[in-house]
Amino acid sequence: MDLDTVLNRPWSGWSKDDGPDTDVVLSSRIRLARNLEGVPFPVAMKGEHLTAVMAAAERVVESLNSGAGLGRYSLIAIKDLRQLDRAVLVEKHLMSPQHASNEKYGALILREDECVSIMVNEEDHFRIQTLSSGLQLPETLRLANVVDDAMDRVVRYAFSPQIGYLTCCPTNVGTGLRGSVMVHVPALALTGQAGSVLSAVGKLGLVVRGLYGEGSEAAGNVFQISNQVSLGQTEGDIVANLSGIARRIIDQERDARARLINGIRMQLEDRVFRAFGVMKNARIMSSAEALRLWSDIRLGICAGLIMGIPLAKLDELLVMSRPGYIQRTAGREMEPSERDITRANMIRKLLEV
Amino acid sequence: MDLDTVLNRPWSGWSKDDGPDTDVVLSSRIRLARNLEGVPFPVAMKGEHLTAVMAAAERVVESLNSGAGLGRYSLIAIKDLRQLDRAVLVEKHLMSPQHASNEKYGALILREDECVSIMVNEEDHFRIQTLSSGLQLPETLRLANVVDDAMDRVVRYAFSPQIGYLTCCPTNVGTGLRGSVMVHVPALALTGQAGSVLSAVGKLGLVVRGLYGEGSEAAGNVFQISNQVSLGQTEGDIVANLSGIARRIIDQERDARARLINGIRMQLEDRVFRAFGVMKNARIMSSAEALRLWSDIRLGICAGLIMGIPLAKLDELLVMSRPGYIQRTAGREMEPSERDITRANMIRKLLEV
Repeated sequence: MDLDTVLNRPWSGWSKDDGPDTDVVLSSRIRLARNLEGVPFPVAMKGEHLTAVMAAAERVVESLNSGAGLGRYSLIAIKDLRQLDRAVLVEKHLMSPQHASNEKYGALILREDECVSIMVNEEDHFRIQTLSSGLQLPETLRLANVVDDAMDRVVRYAFSPQIGYLTCCPTNVGTGLRGSVMVHVPALALTGQAGSVLSAVGKLGLVVRGLYGEGSEAAGNVFQISNQVSLGQTEGDIVANLSGIARRIIDQERDARARLINGIRMQLEDRVFRAFGVMKNARIMSSAEALRLWSDIRLGICAGLIMGIPLAKLDELLVMSRPGYIQRTAGREMEPSERDITRANMIRKLLEV
Repeated sequence: MDLDTVLNRPWSGWSKDDGPDTDVVLSSRIRLARNLEGVPFPVAMKGEHLTAVMAAAERVVESLNSGAGLGRYSLIAIKDLRQLDRAVLVEKHLMSPQHASNEKYGALILREDECVSIMVNEEDHFRIQTLSSGLQLPETLRLANVVDDAMDRVVRYAFSPQIGYLTCCPTNVGTGLRGSVMVHVPALALTGQAGSVLSAVGKLGLVVRGLYGEGSEAAGNVFQISNQVSLGQTEGDIVANLSGIARRIIDQERDARARLINGIRMQLEDRVFRAFGVMKNARIMSSAEALRLWSDIRLGICAGLIMGIPLAKLDELLVMSRPGYIQRTAGREMEPSERDITRANMIRKLLEV
């Protein structure tokens, strides 16, 4: 796999808008936390344990690459990545921000289409992540399980028959599973319902976060919704519960869109086309504004108001407008003010018909 | 002359951008106040005097129409005009707002290209107005004098050898001349100099007003600058003085534009292209916003940043976005909210390449 190819393109295999319900759900994600038996968790790891983990990681890559139809995988040490390369991998949701600074022990196993990434020595020895377009958690879990099985054949997991997979943080013990969906709810935000809908989700034991993980604000009206507990429920239960809640949010968002279209169609049209006009013409644009305009334009495309821009193309903007991607594409670090100009240029080029 | 032709089109003979210095000066205007001997001023007029004035107006039209190369003129009684027709004539600067409600005595003599209009029974019996593109006051005065001469052959003006033309308001006595230039000074406004430049103009004995006459605010960074006194100076002096001041404003505005281009070109480009993007995409637009965006876009065209839109075409927007023109074009009265939608549609169509 050519890592440059991954880092050069603003899209991923899972961001091609070929999944179901992509008008509201950008992506489905499954994460499985796995650890090696007899090796301390990364937080307690010493240099001598690294050899064991990296040897296991190499076997994993070999196993995955030899599996039929599993894709092509590469193992990359964090320390071998330039800062801007790491930033782009974070912006593409292929690894966590914390992992990007893990030069001592950190590595990443990446499938060339970016639908599978495995963080090595993040909080756990292995964090398998699978990503898909739209709402398809069972399919995404299936892919994660296939990867997990291929790994299981070549490494010995820390596993207790009583409580399941052992993980560094107790919240991940059991299935080690976290499922999450990334939803775009501009109409709920416009009609002032987003707060109540999302706080209801919180009361159901799920976690709601912004586009870039814990603590990031809900820029662009995008929210990640994830399960919090991975113990005491089967994988199927977790995924079914999360899917059901995602489906309710989809219904509520679609209702809100229909109400906007029926009630204030002209105002909505004005809003989305103004956003489109600014996006196609601005010469200076902050990432916050880009995300705000993206949200309006995406709503306009989904509502059938803006034609001729495929969702997948618009969604490239989510990565393209990030500071890391901009600087890596330019091949150098930039002041924020220069980034704002480059961002505007890149977005204009993207939207040129 | 077909009045409908005049009322249907958002441009005038003088708004074709074929004059000098149109990057800053939209138009030059000359007004000559004239009254009939032996007939009370309109403010004191009775019904029996109307016959004399209207008979004189008819002779004037005949005289003008029979003059070689003077164009085709029509006489229109205000009472015969529908409200929306009157509104458009005001919006096209062909008569004053006051005159539009002068149903009892008011009339208008209009040349088909709109470069000459004569208000009958406004404050004076006749107010000759000539309009030209850009800064060309002497030429505009010459046209007014030609019209004045043609009139002088068929009516007897109230004139005193000592003090000149007699007018209803003492400020117009003497030459009866008011010259004015309409300047667009967006760079002076952006750099915060407009206030001081214009107040200096005021100290030179000139009057500064907004786009739509006394009391109207300086929407779109457009100002009318006129002489205040028409007594004790020759026509040539008045025009030379006003031309000189206009030329200084042109220089200052061009300096300010050059400083913006050299100093903050990218911010300027961002500003004008955002305005352009919104103008080409909005679905709802107030007249105030249209004028604000027009100002930015005109600056962008003059600065060579926006290509492909002739100034004359952009300037059609000044009439096109006015409430009267919009409603007359639609053939009916409209609520402001409906006008805002129609305005946005008309502007989008205008700017379609």
